[in-house]
Amino acid sequence: MILTSKSNPLIRETLSLKEKKGRKETGLFLVEGAKMASECLKSGMETERVIASESYRGELPEDAVRVSDGLFRLLSDEKTPQGILCRVRIPRRTLRPPQGSCLLLDGVSDPGNMGAIIRTASAAGYKQLYLADCTDPWSPKSVRASMSGIFFTELYIAPRAEILQTLEGIPVFAADMEGENIFSFSPPAVFALAVGNEANGISEEVFARAAARLKIPMRPEQESLNAAVAAGIAMYALKREQFTK
Amino acid sequence: MILTSKSNPLIRETLSLKEKKGRKETGLFLVEGAKMASECLKSGMETERVIASESYRGELPEDAVRVSDGLFRLLSDEKTPQGILCRVRIPRRTLRPPQGSCLLLDGVSDPGNMGAIIRTASAAGYKQLYLADCTDPWSPKSVRASMSGIFFTELYIAPRAEILQTLEGIPVFAADMEGENIFSFSPPAVFALAVGNEANGISEEVFARAAARLKIPMRPEQESLNAAVAAGIAMYALKREQFTK
Repeated sequence: MILTSKSNPLIRETLSLKEKKGRKETGLFLVEGAKMASECLKSGMETERVIASESYRGELPEDAVRVSDGLFRLLSDEKTPQGILCRVRIPRRTLRPPQGSCLLLDGVSDPGNMGAIIRTASAAGYKQLYLADCTDPWSPKSVRASMSGIFFTELYIAPRAEILQTLEGIPVFAADMEGENIFSFSPPAVFALAVGNEANGISEEVFARAAARLKIPMRPEQESLNAAVAAGIAMYALKREQFTK
Repeated sequence: MILTSKSNPLIRETLSLKEKKGRKETGLFLVEGAKMASECLKSGMETERVIASESYRGELPEDAVRVSDGLFRLLSDEKTPQGILCRVRIPRRTLRPPQGSCLLLDGVSDPGNMGAIIRTASAAGYKQLYLADCTDPWSPKSVRASMSGIFFTELYIAPRAEILQTLEGIPVFAADMEGENIFSFSPPAVFALAVGNEANGISEEVFARAAARLKIPMRPEQESLNAAVAAGIAMYALKREQFTK
């Protein structure tokens, strides 16, 4: 059977997952594209349902739902849809301390930056990410930009004060425009790297708790870096000794 | 006088600058927003004309042109236009060797990545950027993502073979998934860092000319990084000794 109607309950609910409200109500998010879907199915995430377009020719689980190509375009968040998407359970996680060095995302507001930061965190081994006052990491744009990083990291969304309490005893280093040169700074084995809002940087609460402010040195004519780029440089700079062992 | 008509020649030409064809025909590009416009006017770039919306209240040069708010929205590339944009002369540059370490952009295709790379290059002191087979760096999206970086760098757009000839005698290091660990690699004082296409990486021609392939170490589950993030990590990794002097 091929679904063709927008008013089908599964389709209506799937459409709602493009928005935060729908994801909150259902506890589901969307993963789109053949590669991401295949990594998702292998990752141990709980895929609730696979939806494919009528003309999709890749492998599918038996209980996958087929929809018309027109209907799939409606569900898709891509300019050129590949014809496959998964409805995936958002992991429910109880706030707990990190198992190693971690990230504290303090007001990151752009979904593309969010996804790119998750992607880099996954690559650089910052497995736990604590999100205070950030854009929703489970949005289609963030998930896509994370390039499967969202399957291999642990995201904790919580109020800033609770996160800081959870990180008690772990030194927090705030990426900032001022402070010590991050390339000459030697961090302890376990730390939390704090990355702030694109326009306003780190919040007062996180600054108040920070063990140090660290800066990426820059030529005077350039004022700042893209948030995801700065986060990537900082993540690797603070682990450079582990990476050269 | 306040321009209100789309068919005014200045407006028509300005609209054409959103596309590569129009920029090529006129040799002009657009810089939008109060901060970017102000930095542009200070940077030594040749601003041919400033256009402001009727309700824009910031300082303006005497020969600025006012347009209706509706018309400005048409010219603007922003969701929430600030009401000021500059028509700026694209610098004409003759291909020449770099004055220090430089970037070779080898097929970078996303305008957001292009701008973010230019921004980081400006911050990290890679003043000359050689672009082979890339997206147009003078597009509104790239210019915006460069956050004034485009005013402080020198861009050379040329065929790959000509660029490689210009870089004769300068070691080219190719950012790649394989190769030496970039964090333990010690580059010479002057080098060219090559950054490849988002999907396909470095071209065969540039690989053939590369003195080494350098990789950013990654956890096995994560396959790759965002191109602008990877370029940023690589730019700073290769200059880490200069930055800690």
